[in-house]
Amino acid sequence: MSILIKNGRIITSTLDFEGDLFIEGEKISALGKNLSVKADQEIDASGKLVFPGGIDPHVHLEMPFMGTFSSDTYETGTRAALFGGTTSVIDFILQKQGHSLYEAFNEWSGRATGNAVGDYSFHMAVTDFNEDTRKEIEALVNQEGITSFKMFMAYKGALMIDDRQLTGLMTEVKKQGGMVTAHATNGEMIDFLVAKFKEEGKLSPLYHYLSQPEVTEAEASGRFADIANYTGCPAYIVHMTCEGALNAVRNATRRNQNVFVETCIQYLTLDASLYDKGFESAKWVMSPPLREKKDQQTLWAGLNQGLVQVVATDHCPFFWKQKEMGSEDFSKIPNGHPAIEHRIELLYSEGVAKGKISLNKFVELTSGNAAKIFGMFPQKGTLSPGSDADIVIFDPLKKHSISAKTHHMNCDYSAYEGWELTGKCEKVLLRGKVVIDDNLCLVEKGNGKFIKRNKVSGKI
Amino acid sequence: MSILIKNGRIITSTLDFEGDLFIEGEKISALGKNLSVKADQEIDASGKLVFPGGIDPHVHLEMPFMGTFSSDTYETGTRAALFGGTTSVIDFILQKQGHSLYEAFNEWSGRATGNAVGDYSFHMAVTDFNEDTRKEIEALVNQEGITSFKMFMAYKGALMIDDRQLTGLMTEVKKQGGMVTAHATNGEMIDFLVAKFKEEGKLSPLYHYLSQPEVTEAEASGRFADIANYTGCPAYIVHMTCEGALNAVRNATRRNQNVFVETCIQYLTLDASLYDKGFESAKWVMSPPLREKKDQQTLWAGLNQGLVQVVATDHCPFFWKQKEMGSEDFSKIPNGHPAIEHRIELLYSEGVAKGKISLNKFVELTSGNAAKIFGMFPQKGTLSPGSDADIVIFDPLKKHSISAKTHHMNCDYSAYEGWELTGKCEKVLLRGKVVIDDNLCLVEKGNGKFIKRNKVSGKI
Amino acid sequence: MSILIKNGRIITSTLDFEGDLFIEGEKISALGKNLSVKADQEIDASGKLVFPGGIDPHVHLEMPFMGTFSSDTYETGTRAALFGGTTSVIDFILQKQGHSLYEAFNEWSGRATGNAVGDYSFHMAVTDFNEDTRKEIEALVNQEGITSFKMFMAYKGALMIDDRQLTGLMTEVKKQGGMVTAHATNGEMIDFLVAKFKEEGKLSPLYHYLSQPEVTEAEASGRFADIANYTGCPAYIVHMTCEGALNAVRNATRRNQNVFVETCIQYLTLDASLYDKGFESAKWVMSPPLREKKDQQTLWAGLNQGLVQVVATDHCPFFWKQKEMGSEDFSKIPNGHPAIEHRIELLYSEGVAKGKISLNKFVELTSGNAAKIFGMFPQKGTLSPGSDADIVIFDPLKKHSISAKTHHMNCDYSAYEGWELTGKCEKVLLRGKVVIDDNLCLVEKGNGKFIKRNKVSGKI
Amino acid sequence: MSILIKNGRIITSTLDFEGDLFIEGEKISALGKNLSVKADQEIDASGKLVFPGGIDPHVHLEMPFMGTFSSDTYETGTRAALFGGTTSVIDFILQKQGHSLYEAFNEWSGRATGNAVGDYSFHMAVTDFNEDTRKEIEALVNQEGITSFKMFMAYKGALMIDDRQLTGLMTEVKKQGGMVTAHATNGEMIDFLVAKFKEEGKLSPLYHYLSQPEVTEAEASGRFADIANYTGCPAYIVHMTCEGALNAVRNATRRNQNVFVETCIQYLTLDASLYDKGFESAKWVMSPPLREKKDQQTLWAGLNQGLVQVVATDHCPFFWKQKEMGSEDFSKIPNGHPAIEHRIELLYSEGVAKGKISLNKFVELTSGNAAKIFGMFPQKGTLSPGSDADIVIFDPLKKHSISAKTHHMNCDYSAYEGWELTGKCEKVLLRGKVVIDDNLCLVEKGNGKFIKRNKVSGKI
Ligand SMILES: [Zn+2]
Ligand SMILES: [Zn+2]
Ligand SMILES: [Zn+2]
Ligand SMILES: [Zn+2]
Ligand SMILES: [Zn+2]
Ligand SMILES: [Zn+2]
Ligand SMILES: [Zn+2]
Ligand SMILES: [Zn+2]
Repeated sequence: MSILIKNGRIITSTLDFEGDLFIEGEKISALGKNLSVKADQEIDASGKLVFPGGIDPHVHLEMPFMGTFSSDTYETGTRAALFGGTTSVIDFILQKQGHSLYEAFNEWSGRATGNAVGDYSFHMAVTDFNEDTRKEIEALVNQEGITSFKMFMAYKGALMIDDRQLTGLMTEVKKQGGMVTAHATNGEMIDFLVAKFKEEGKLSPLYHYLSQPEVTEAEASGRFADIANYTGCPAYIVHMTCEGALNAVRNATRRNQNVFVETCIQYLTLDASLYDKGFESAKWVMSPPLREKKDQQTLWAGLNQGLVQVVATDHCPFFWKQKEMGSEDFSKIPNGHPAIEHRIELLYSEGVAKGKISLNKFVELTSGNAAKIFGMFPQKGTLSPGSDADIVIFDPLKKHSISAKTHHMNCDYSAYEGWELTGKCEKVLLRGKVVIDDNLCLVEKGNGKFIKRNKVSGKI
Repeated sequence: MSILIKNGRIITSTLDFEGDLFIEGEKISALGKNLSVKADQEIDASGKLVFPGGIDPHVHLEMPFMGTFSSDTYETGTRAALFGGTTSVIDFILQKQGHSLYEAFNEWSGRATGNAVGDYSFHMAVTDFNEDTRKEIEALVNQEGITSFKMFMAYKGALMIDDRQLTGLMTEVKKQGGMVTAHATNGEMIDFLVAKFKEEGKLSPLYHYLSQPEVTEAEASGRFADIANYTGCPAYIVHMTCEGALNAVRNATRRNQNVFVETCIQYLTLDASLYDKGFESAKWVMSPPLREKKDQQTLWAGLNQGLVQVVATDHCPFFWKQKEMGSEDFSKIPNGHPAIEHRIELLYSEGVAKGKISLNKFVELTSGNAAKIFGMFPQKGTLSPGSDADIVIFDPLKKHSISAKTHHMNCDYSAYEGWELTGKCEKVLLRGKVVIDDNLCLVEKGNGKFIKRNKVSGKI
Repeated sequence: MSILIKNGRIITSTLDFEGDLFIEGEKISALGKNLSVKADQEIDASGKLVFPGGIDPHVHLEMPFMGTFSSDTYETGTRAALFGGTTSVIDFILQKQGHSLYEAFNEWSGRATGNAVGDYSFHMAVTDFNEDTRKEIEALVNQEGITSFKMFMAYKGALMIDDRQLTGLMTEVKKQGGMVTAHATNGEMIDFLVAKFKEEGKLSPLYHYLSQPEVTEAEASGRFADIANYTGCPAYIVHMTCEGALNAVRNATRRNQNVFVETCIQYLTLDASLYDKGFESAKWVMSPPLREKKDQQTLWAGLNQGLVQVVATDHCPFFWKQKEMGSEDFSKIPNGHPAIEHRIELLYSEGVAKGKISLNKFVELTSGNAAKIFGMFPQKGTLSPGSDADIVIFDPLKKHSISAKTHHMNCDYSAYEGWELTGKCEKVLLRGKVVIDDNLCLVEKGNGKFIKRNKVSGKI
Repeated sequence: MSILIKNGRIITSTLDFEGDLFIEGEKISALGKNLSVKADQEIDASGKLVFPGGIDPHVHLEMPFMGTFSSDTYETGTRAALFGGTTSVIDFILQKQGHSLYEAFNEWSGRATGNAVGDYSFHMAVTDFNEDTRKEIEALVNQEGITSFKMFMAYKGALMIDDRQLTGLMTEVKKQGGMVTAHATNGEMIDFLVAKFKEEGKLSPLYHYLSQPEVTEAEASGRFADIANYTGCPAYIVHMTCEGALNAVRNATRRNQNVFVETCIQYLTLDASLYDKGFESAKWVMSPPLREKKDQQTLWAGLNQGLVQVVATDHCPFFWKQKEMGSEDFSKIPNGHPAIEHRIELLYSEGVAKGKISLNKFVELTSGNAAKIFGMFPQKGTLSPGSDADIVIFDPLKKHSISAKTHHMNCDYSAYEGWELTGKCEKVLLRGKVVIDDNLCLVEKGNGKFIKRNKVSGKI
């Protein structure tokens, strides 16, 4: 099977030409001006952008939570991702404290295998680092291709590990050629504030926001960078939201350290004024919470400064019914929101179309950098011959609006209801197959494959 | 005329595959695995790296100086550049104070036209900013494609402009869609120290070094960034050498500013211990001078942090006889050294081969970023179909050594005499023509073309 | 002649007791609880604070300006100072470019001698540093007791010196055991903005403010600190107004440098909203201009952090008629405002009474630190036996309001018209003599003496 | 009983005169030139310095530790302090986890009462913050005059509290008008490194040093400052040793925060080269460990910058026999060393005599600032009439050397054996009584009194 995409504007951070892209089987075969090849299928991309399928390195699908699960399964979640041009996701395996890493790996693989529509990989979240789990890391890296290890600095008693474990984990991960990633907020401070607000009868979603002030993230980001610097382990901070946290990374540059930073599309586009809507604000209850305008400005600047390399989503949707578990107590509101589908279109519309970032940067942020940082390059995240033919054909002028009525995520509300966007994913290819065309998904569950990733050096 | 490069490892910062690259006329036509095209010529690149021809955005060819000229002409200099894989250079037009910009432009064009062997462009160094020269900027940008404007913060009475002119120049350049670049050292402090040392009879090359301490560069870099931030003009610091100066840029990130930074290959590889060799040290008399080991570490880190985007040379060679003009007085030693030929091979050998930077980063640093920053992308600095077929075929394993006896620069000494390198440019193509093959240059003077550049936004 | 002050609360930064202070002749003789001494005169200070006479190290009396003079003479200005508890001032001698330092010294001494009512000293502002003026510095330090040297980084063509002279001056002053002080704003940038606004027909006082944005002060403060650090000269920044500038000093602490900082009472209490009053805003045209609320917060914090050591005034009054010289052109408005009289009462009312600073800190800021920094301690700035009996007896509860109708400065408007203050200077003693009592000045011109100052080390 | 000290050079940070000081009963009564008073006793202080008795706010006397105690009792420790001019100490009550604060208070009071020779107060170290202990704080502040609360960020399982407790404790202490102080090192990282070294068989004292790298202190200092800033609680970092930690405080100044900092005399004078002496290095096993020359420079600079306000000792001596508990395992070496006696003489000799700090600063550092910060001013820490007559008469020229043979601390080794000092405490008075004279202690145990301290505002 071969496909020829013709006359598109083909874009990565080093490609920019109008011409053709030829696919043979699952792989990109050639790029050129007027390629003289014979294809089983031709797609006319005139007036369209053609760029690599997106990589969202931060999603939570079917994540077990308080006896329920985040509402997108591997099927619905990766399908919605495909609609939005994201062809690969990296989900988080959550080790259960007291249990092994492989047990969790098997559980997560069990849910994903045969169900995912798009490609996927896993980060391993180590929630209990000890001599036994330390020994599992080598096998995960070398046999399973799981080369990134998440540490939660919050959610004590469930996910959080202390700085001793964190230091130990970094030491081991560095030795094995992996990368550590952190949910960097000071869980102890947050627990204090949550308890305090609850004691004071302050139970609305607003207090979710107030219980995670900027300092909790700035502090933990600095601490994580400090320990990473000491151990020498490649390090990545997930879902950064604020100026204080980015300043911690900026400070770290003075000692010649490089810490990778991910933000999420919502932190670039939404702000904390959404917490003034009574219980409706539960829609945006996530951790860390939305921040201020000044923080948005900082994050956009960080993208252009090269200090923030990735825009992800932290997709973790819950139905309104599930959100209502916290109607009397913000701390019981499941954290997260539906986002996987609109990351790329939002970043194009709010970023490229408004002149905040260049088109080349846009591609780096949505796929290229994540591929390099997480050991998937050049298989994923680019349009290089030999790479997986994961491709978005994008209409840069198409206007459309976001709504829960029309989105494909398994969630009954949208965080962006009614937003008008410029630019839309028209066709999406995954490993050489058209998977999305004209608002239809052409493949079934089981189409997605697990991506084994390579070791990393922390240099991209 | 068409050329097919076969079986190379083709590299940019987003391409990485083994396969073929097809050239038609002056342009790259296609990239692919086993391209089935017919070519007039085939080049077997098995075991070789294939990457974009280098761009050196900081050279001084045939630069008038004290009644003489820097010793490489546009012919010898761009030819030597080609030997080292650099297919395009950006030279500096130096306005004469009291005269117009166009007068200098014509003078420089006169020297280059018909002489350059490789492609070239010009920065315009504005040494006298006033109402008349202000008015010339628009035409230079729009008609001549000269979109970057250099400001010297040192060399008072010859090249230096004061902060008032600097502010005015930035204001105008921003308005016209250009970029400002700066030689950022505090010329007043340097003049004080030079005069002081001379008065004290301290006349050897060592005092050249001591008359430009780190503070002179750190201070001016910070000041330049401050004014750029105020005016909003895209800004670029040339030949950064030291921790203090990079820290000024790091500090500027806190206010969401992005300043582009260039270092030169010598600041990454050589250090100030070379100033302990008596008058022989004149070989390395350049401005700013070589610095310390700590500064090298900072600059290598800066490359990986994304805060230093370009590695150039500040190539400005003088024969030993010319250097001897300063045998009794360091301030009379012509500033500069021969470097244009070895930038790429040195950065590969010292950087990639020693694991300090990735291969993708290497390509960004030697061509891709300069092309984007200076408005030449995607014509130059990449391997995109439609782009100029400026290409290096590089043997990554070939060992060789540097010597004035064998180099092609018109200079009778080498700054790296006897250095052993790993990796060599084997063939070089410029606009679809093999210009260097097996240590021979196959083209004559006049082969090089002037590159008109585009406006820039400061976002890449 | 002896005086016994009884039952006051006697305060410096290390004294705090209720009791007595005994004066013999010009000097403090004893401090104690129930001193059993016989005095020619007794003053009951029950319920009053007794603290050292203030030192205002930044005033401009009878300063020549565009054919006229600042409106307070040494007589009227030092008398008004006494009314407000300031017993010593340091004025600035302004060298005329092309002329000697001693010529200016003689001119200034001529105006002050026999006229001052309170004590005074001079800083020497070096506006033309060359081999001749360099040689005068030693004598000024050793023979005249003028140990501080001012450098203007603005007012080009009149007062400004360039960084070369600045480096030279610091080198010499350090050698002679002196201190350099700077008006730290980037004069070149300001000149650019002034010219630009004038060209655009923007001529109201608002544009005075806009022509000196924060960056002009932040940049120059950093540059001054850089050069001071390089030369090793003790350094002091006058009239700091803003966060950017204090951050430059905070950054300098990282290299183990200590730069002294003075702010003025108006920058702690007034803000730039006063520039929205049409030409009336000319009342507050001073350089640097008033800033924002955030800058006030920074400066108050700086006092408590120990990073801002002195609160002065930059007193430089002009009659409204004189201000009107700039009615058509803000750049012709004489810079400055009347302030010398209310510094201490304002700092008490806005600072101590509102809980922003402690009483001990208040004394450090109004006299103690200036005395130490400028080589007058322990003669001035404290209540130590043997020190000059310069003393304020202050009613901390007395309410009063400020008005041009009642102030003693020779100026027909007040910058604080109608402000209500808590706390008032009731009696003031200078060298053992009651000079102010119950709103009357008991001494005539000629009462003030010139203070010879000591060398300084930059360590207090 | 009255005493007249005659003809000394009387010094605080605002007093500096040659003259007399008169004491009546326990209090200073008067200061003056030639006081004409009749005294029961006269002391000729000609040629001597007379300054306030020192305050050492960081000592551990008779501290329970692994079944034994630090070797100086309240008797021997405070007596040795008096020999060295330190008339007041603040010791640390260590709450036992699971027990109340008052239980510990009673235990510590029991040991001190009737035994101390010099005056003393207590900090309360809260090692288990919960609803019960929270409620005790108000009483401790208001009834016992214990207004400072220590938090250990290290020593998990014994003393350490987590960030949740830390946030809660700060919130309560601020409410009650107190101050928090911190042993700011990352206990988790240290525990990791200790375990790692032990596992690797690295058991010598050198590994004590290596298990507490600079980052552990820099990180925790930043974290403590962050939380203090968020809660608004006045904060003080004890025993700061290094550049990284001071830089954390310097960074905090940018957000207008003020954190008080204490260093100890050993960190200014000794360095980590002492850990190269095999097991003898156990003499200097303390936490944090000694650091590098660069850190000494930073701390001396910090004193002059006003960012380090106090020089203490962390006196916690153990006999060599006790140190030998760790001869096979560095983690069993009791932490601490004898220091209480020589703080003032060392700071004079190494600081004042060598020109690193001024004499006024010396007094601030040894007594004045601690008194203000901890709510004892003006009762202690100054020479103000009405203040306690705690006085040192110091011979600034006297040479002597330190030795365990001659010191008065109950410890069989000295950390400074053989050091030659300039300047010696000749006579010491405590509350109006000569307690040390000519190397004799004239008072018995029980002479020392408990000092109730005042609330504090964090502004001095
Ligand atoms: Zn998270
Ligand atoms: Zn997440
Ligand atoms: Zn240059
Ligand atoms: Zn150059
Ligand atoms: Zn000024
Ligand atoms: Zn002034
Ligand atoms: Zn401790
Ligand atoms: Zn301690």
